[in-house]
Amino acid sequence: MSVTARWLELADIKDELAARDWFPGTSGNLAIRVEDDPLTFLVTASGRDKRKRTPDDFVLVDAFGRLIGEQTGKPSAETLLHVEVFNRTEATCSLHVHTIDNNVISELYAARGEVVFTGQEIIKALDYWEEDAIVRVPIIDNHADIPTLAAAFAPHVRSSAGAVLIRNHGITVWGETPAATKRYLEAYEFLFSYTLKLRALGVHS
Amino acid sequence: MSVTARWLELADIKDELAARDWFPGTSGNLAIRVEDDPLTFLVTASGRDKRKRTPDDFVLVDAFGRLIGEQTGKPSAETLLHVEVFNRTEATCSLHVHTIDNNVISELYAARGEVVFTGQEIIKALDYWEEDAIVRVPIIDNHADIPTLAAAFAPHVRSSAGAVLIRNHGITVWGETPAATKRYLEAYEFLFSYTLKLRALGVHS
Amino acid sequence: MSVTARWLELADIKDELAARDWFPGTSGNLAIRVEDDPLTFLVTASGRDKRKRTPDDFVLVDAFGRLIGEQTGKPSAETLLHVEVFNRTEATCSLHVHTIDNNVISELYAARGEVVFTGQEIIKALDYWEEDAIVRVPIIDNHADIPTLAAAFAPHVRSSAGAVLIRNHGITVWGETPAATKRYLEAYEFLFSYTLKLRALGVHS
Amino acid sequence: MSVTARWLELADIKDELAARDWFPGTSGNLAIRVEDDPLTFLVTASGRDKRKRTPDDFVLVDAFGRLIGEQTGKPSAETLLHVEVFNRTEATCSLHVHTIDNNVISELYAARGEVVFTGQEIIKALDYWEEDAIVRVPIIDNHADIPTLAAAFAPHVRSSAGAVLIRNHGITVWGETPAATKRYLEAYEFLFSYTLKLRALGVHS
Repeated sequence: MSVTARWLELADIKDELAARDWFPGTSGNLAIRVEDDPLTFLVTASGRDKRKRTPDDFVLVDAFGRLIGEQTGKPSAETLLHVEVFNRTEATCSLHVHTIDNNVISELYAARGEVVFTGQEIIKALDYWEEDAIVRVPIIDNHADIPTLAAAFAPHVRSSAGAVLIRNHGITVWGETPAATKRYLEAYEFLFSYTLKLRALGVHS
Repeated sequence: MSVTARWLELADIKDELAARDWFPGTSGNLAIRVEDDPLTFLVTASGRDKRKRTPDDFVLVDAFGRLIGEQTGKPSAETLLHVEVFNRTEATCSLHVHTIDNNVISELYAARGEVVFTGQEIIKALDYWEEDAIVRVPIIDNHADIPTLAAAFAPHVRSSAGAVLIRNHGITVWGETPAATKRYLEAYEFLFSYTLKLRALGVHS
Repeated sequence: MSVTARWLELADIKDELAARDWFPGTSGNLAIRVEDDPLTFLVTASGRDKRKRTPDDFVLVDAFGRLIGEQTGKPSAETLLHVEVFNRTEATCSLHVHTIDNNVISELYAARGEVVFTGQEIIKALDYWEEDAIVRVPIIDNHADIPTLAAAFAPHVRSSAGAVLIRNHGITVWGETPAATKRYLEAYEFLFSYTLKLRALGVHS
Repeated sequence: MSVTARWLELADIKDELAARDWFPGTSGNLAIRVEDDPLTFLVTASGRDKRKRTPDDFVLVDAFGRLIGEQTGKPSAETLLHVEVFNRTEATCSLHVHTIDNNVISELYAARGEVVFTGQEIIKALDYWEEDAIVRVPIIDNHADIPTLAAAFAPHVRSSAGAVLIRNHGITVWGETPAATKRYLEAYEFLFSYTLKLRALGVHS
């Protein structure tokens, strides 16, 4: 796909997530693979208001997350996480968002190192099709130093579809297609909100 | 009504429900009766993003849920539930959606096999007009195998207006007109959210 | 003001409240005074989907809530409540909406017959300007018979600005101008939501 | 910048906050610096519905919050708070909004005189970049008399970026640029909502 086609695809996903208010305080970032060999991908430019759509929203970077050629803007500080996703898997899209509920889940289950879901129809949206499938989302500690964070994140990137919660720092979700990645993100957020609502009623899963 | 008129009617309902974010992770599906004899109906094509509006959103199927002629896309995996609705009643519309609150209600009341409402003005929106009307929504177990699920669902489809909760798998609502069906769905969701909010405050109805 | 000007004013308020999803299941109704002597007012036509805007959304009625001349549609079943408001006061607008939170408040405080607010800056939006103003919203029982409900409602309509909660049947708010009425409604809903959130945290006001 | 440019900048921020329903009951107000010497700034005209966009939404005032020349409308009653911000710091924007969550936080933590946050990635959006940064938001008592309120508010205005909660009267946030100020406001609201959700689950930070 051309850079422009990928750009538009990522911009549409950004608009949808922004409409849900999933980029509070300019947090969050998005990335989409453009070429495989050598690897290039588009990633959110640093500090942009993701509720607006402008020609400078994304920058093109290489396999190390470095800016390619001359462009307006610099890559998001958290580009290194997307670098791990695109180098280690065949995923084409990687989304990182902060929501109230994913942050609360990451705090509640941090000590266990993961949050586990089962018995929910929405799990099929994650492409787990077995009955009684068990979904595990690892939760890693947050680090202000991004290379350190990326090193903690990398071992959990083992296939072309997955998700990692960073404690009080949102979720990163990736998948084989941009549409699948957005679907996974919505499904995870549904599972988080469902779990919190049940817990608030005294039911612990 | 023509296929086109029905298509547009269903697309408008889809847009409204999508605006409420009631199709998380491409979950949910919708169906509208087109002809009575032989029965044909439009149903969501499998795996579509219901937040977008395209000419391929629905497919036309027969009384067994089989695709009629050559069309782009295949019927939603859950078409068999709508088959039960349209074969067993005179309903013209059938809506299946996942919300956080209908899933939480389905889990909280699963052991009782139903959730019961009374004393709410919004019950009139369900076309129960007697004072002190009692509304019962059956809750059935979920099954990954759709024919098994449809068999568990069918006995609860007894009139041209009704609703069934599937445990951790959303609600299916049907009615004599598309407008009535949408009204029922909104009213059920209101009752669910009201009940959960009261329970969170320690009041059990 | 002309009927048309009033119509447009009411339609704009309806659109705004509909955007907040405050008319679930076609519930709720709105009314605006047109003439004083003899009294005429516009009121929601029965059973309309308030999320859509059409030329048939409102009908013109007299001081008894009867349709004037030949018009498409019939007045909302609850027109008699607005009749009380416009006959007993100089209010120009009367709004009746169901929200989850106003219904939950009406249930929680029903036994006391009122819910009381104080110490909130938003109370100024209700045109109570004294420091430490105390706002009391009466809560009456619901009756399926509208004349009976109107008779229970009437004694609480004592000035050109006010509000009454009907148990599990929403709130009716009225005011001297349409803009003030909408402002009151928003302020009451804010107070309800605030109170419920504090109670859910164990703080009872 | 010209008055017009500043006007449009402030109007865009107003539209965004209004879309989140952060001006219930016409509450809230916004201000943006126009000139430094002598100080002039635009501030919300009193009693405007902030969900609408009109040419009369803001008025230009001087360093004392007095209307400059002949204009339609008068400055918001709470202009004196913005006067403190612009006179005491180099901030260019000052936003005051009421949300359910900021009011609940202001009540829950009022006795401590402040609410404190740490260990949240979103804190970076507040331009605190150290790991383990601690954010303190002072909470002051509300006063119906605005000069008294402004006097209680002033000692907390110590740099060109900051925030103060007024008990049951919303938050005031200011910053060096309008974009930064909006980002701070979103980040504070995120922290408030996160904290309340955790507390509702029995976790106190």
